[in-house]
Amino acid sequence: MVFHRHRHHRRRFVLVRTGTLALFACLLPCVATPTFADDAPQPNIIFILADDLGWADIGYHDSEVRTPHLDRLAHDGTRLNQHYVYPTCSPTRVALLSGRFPSRFGVLGPLGSTTKMLGEDARLTHGLRQLGYRTHISGKWHIGETPEHRPLGYGFDTSYGYLRGQIDPYTHRYKFGDHVTWHRDDQFVEECGHVTDLITDEAIRVIESAGQEPFFLYVAHHSPHYPLNEPPKWIAPYEQTIDDVWRRHFAAAITHLDDGVGQIVRALERTGLRDKTLIVFSSDNGGQQNWSAPETEYNGRYAAHTTLGNNQPLRGWKGDLYEGGIRVPAFVNWPGHIPAGHVFETPMHVVDWLPTLIRAAGGDLPPGESVEGVDLWTMLLGQSSTLPDRAMYWKTRAATAVRQGDWKLIQFHRSGRTELFHLKDDPLEETDLADRQPGKVAELSALLKAMAVHDQ
Amino acid sequence: MVFHRHRHHRRRFVLVRTGTLALFACLLPCVATPTFADDAPQPNIIFILADDLGWADIGYHDSEVRTPHLDRLAHDGTRLNQHYVYPTCSPTRVALLSGRFPSRFGVLGPLGSTTKMLGEDARLTHGLRQLGYRTHISGKWHIGETPEHRPLGYGFDTSYGYLRGQIDPYTHRYKFGDHVTWHRDDQFVEECGHVTDLITDEAIRVIESAGQEPFFLYVAHHSPHYPLNEPPKWIAPYEQTIDDVWRRHFAAAITHLDDGVGQIVRALERTGLRDKTLIVFSSDNGGQQNWSAPETEYNGRYAAHTTLGNNQPLRGWKGDLYEGGIRVPAFVNWPGHIPAGHVFETPMHVVDWLPTLIRAAGGDLPPGESVEGVDLWTMLLGQSSTLPDRAMYWKTRAATAVRQGDWKLIQFHRSGRTELFHLKDDPLEETDLADRQPGKVAELSALLKAMAVHDQ
Repeated sequence: MVFHRHRHHRRRFVLVRTGTLALFACLLPCVATPTFADDAPQPNIIFILADDLGWADIGYHDSEVRTPHLDRLAHDGTRLNQHYVYPTCSPTRVALLSGRFPSRFGVLGPLGSTTKMLGEDARLTHGLRQLGYRTHISGKWHIGETPEHRPLGYGFDTSYGYLRGQIDPYTHRYKFGDHVTWHRDDQFVEECGHVTDLITDEAIRVIESAGQEPFFLYVAHHSPHYPLNEPPKWIAPYEQTIDDVWRRHFAAAITHLDDGVGQIVRALERTGLRDKTLIVFSSDNGGQQNWSAPETEYNGRYAAHTTLGNNQPLRGWKGDLYEGGIRVPAFVNWPGHIPAGHVFETPMHVVDWLPTLIRAAGGDLPPGESVEGVDLWTMLLGQSSTLPDRAMYWKTRAATAVRQGDWKLIQFHRSGRTELFHLKDDPLEETDLADRQPGKVAELSALLKAMAVHDQ
Repeated sequence: MVFHRHRHHRRRFVLVRTGTLALFACLLPCVATPTFADDAPQPNIIFILADDLGWADIGYHDSEVRTPHLDRLAHDGTRLNQHYVYPTCSPTRVALLSGRFPSRFGVLGPLGSTTKMLGEDARLTHGLRQLGYRTHISGKWHIGETPEHRPLGYGFDTSYGYLRGQIDPYTHRYKFGDHVTWHRDDQFVEECGHVTDLITDEAIRVIESAGQEPFFLYVAHHSPHYPLNEPPKWIAPYEQTIDDVWRRHFAAAITHLDDGVGQIVRALERTGLRDKTLIVFSSDNGGQQNWSAPETEYNGRYAAHTTLGNNQPLRGWKGDLYEGGIRVPAFVNWPGHIPAGHVFETPMHVVDWLPTLIRAAGGDLPPGESVEGVDLWTMLLGQSSTLPDRAMYWKTRAATAVRQGDWKLIQFHRSGRTELFHLKDDPLEETDLADRQPGKVAELSALLKAMAVHDQ
């Protein structure tokens, strides 16, 4: 089994779920090292993930929040108008790295210190590494905290940021008991500065120290997740335009993130890497309505955050399987390769990034159980318009859902209620068609059952 | 008029209220530079001022708050058991630097961006400078913010910290609209880190860069003033011992400050300056009960601080002219000079520091209107026990008070009520003797009236 990138004749890039990949990489570095071809450039890949950014929380979605750098990248690239993720943090992150529905690992919501997703399951990073990429994470991990569940065991060459699901922007501690979670290369460190700046600064370090190999850089921002404590320079521009103090903080957090994205773009330009770099941006889930700031979190020092995200006009909030919880702002940008000014209407799911990015990096993946997303690379390049035959699947602790074509079915665990929506006709999910379309309900219920077979 | 320090024959060190001092220092540097005598060492002076530290908020006052470094300094020095300040921030600071009751400048409470105390009124710093001292402030100023009311115009050679009355510990901004106030040498700067650490670090820089001249270093801490956002390492030790979350934060803030004091002492030891340095410690006013965290402050991001200081067993809170508002933890320490293990019971007032420290620095002051404190230096050295004939005077927006001997009279402006306490018999001010002692009331009322003559 030889791992290298395709040139004219694509070699199979086989992903296995055991530890043998790492073994191979260690014992056979010459074999595992890909060769490069001038005619098929391997882009650097920067995947920027915002935390809790809602549909209407980005400038180009007609928001009061100003995101000029993101807007520019989206405008100069392709907007992903139906980009789906999971309704909470960890499942989206597990899906991104594994290319599998996170319920396969029993991940139905935010993770604690451990996970059943193992290091070898992070097929995105392992796969890119085998294609010659250096792999880096700056920011939020949220796939475990015990030593065996930290990024370096999941295919990252370097890691930096925080391991748990949220932190105080300045003390960098997790909510319960101000738990230590900030780290460099999986080892806890103390640092000074606002989390958004630190994550941006590390991303720039990665870009500026890039060698000859292409890199994969996962920039997983804290912003605009609570608790919010934004430097005043980001709040001030909203003082005249946003009355609600918490919405103002939230907007400030996003514009702060946006500025970091601008700095990343400038670093790419400065180092001559701009045209060699594919940028993907997404939120990890829909916006959250508010946060009650219980005294058990952050030692009670924050006031209740009474207004946070905005998913308008979509229905629902973070945690929901309605569109507002899982359909989020996203785009892809690669000058000269990804069409500019395009809006991609093909429904796309976070599990698609594994096959899509492996393909972008010049690799190839076998179809089948081990890959649950579909490769949309040629579609994103504008070279193909064939809609993939696929179903999207979500499972949370409260509900399961499936989307196939324009239909979406949600089954709520506690009530047993089933809801059916036709997303093309009713993107705001105002009309539950379950009673009127029993045949479609039966069909999608059976599909949902089939999708669930491999869940833990 | 020659300004230099006394040796055997003390020369008069005349303080005037016009700008001529500065002129003199510029035009006649050789004349103004003091000469040094080996037999009368000029100590470095470090004046550490805590913000809102209550009577029972320091370890050696049988507190649950741990202050090992302060306790050690107090134990190895002389505790000032009846040390009086003003019941709010600015008046104490004005009194310290001017040696005058702050109502002389119309300062009755916290200052805004300006003050009527002029640069030349800061006779402590100007005086020490003329005795050959380098003068430095690290921390809170709160005597004005407009360029003409910043520390460099008040006799400081270097300045660092914040100009307004309080700040967010991490963003270093003032409460209203997150106003910029952090500066170096009176120019606004952006910096990274917790305010307590930054103030300590600057103090250590001053110590480590001290030249041959003695220095006066005013370390005006933010701690334990709200808003509180303490690094977890300072909170953790109190998790088992203090149930109330805000009292825990408050204790953490104090222990954080205490650690900074420990670092300052180590810097003195490292540089061989420990035995050449007089350390004074005080709070600026009594403890505050709580803070409601209105949305108009810090953009509403802090939760209400429901429990803060503790002035037990004294009566009253910050803002009051009862003992809890104005009698605060304080001590003085100078190895080999100030008696160790001594408790100084002579009532001492913040205006006394000007004549006392000028004397400690080898200077001399004329008595009279321009100096309202008394020189307690030889008493502090244990060389004299003559009780000074003096009255202490307070004026706030709500009340005026005078203490003479063991008697204290408070007159409340709004109600017109007068209260009289005998502090020796009734230090907790439980028994108002005004009705029973009309003669004493008349006597102290007349004294109060006389004290007020020079108020603005």
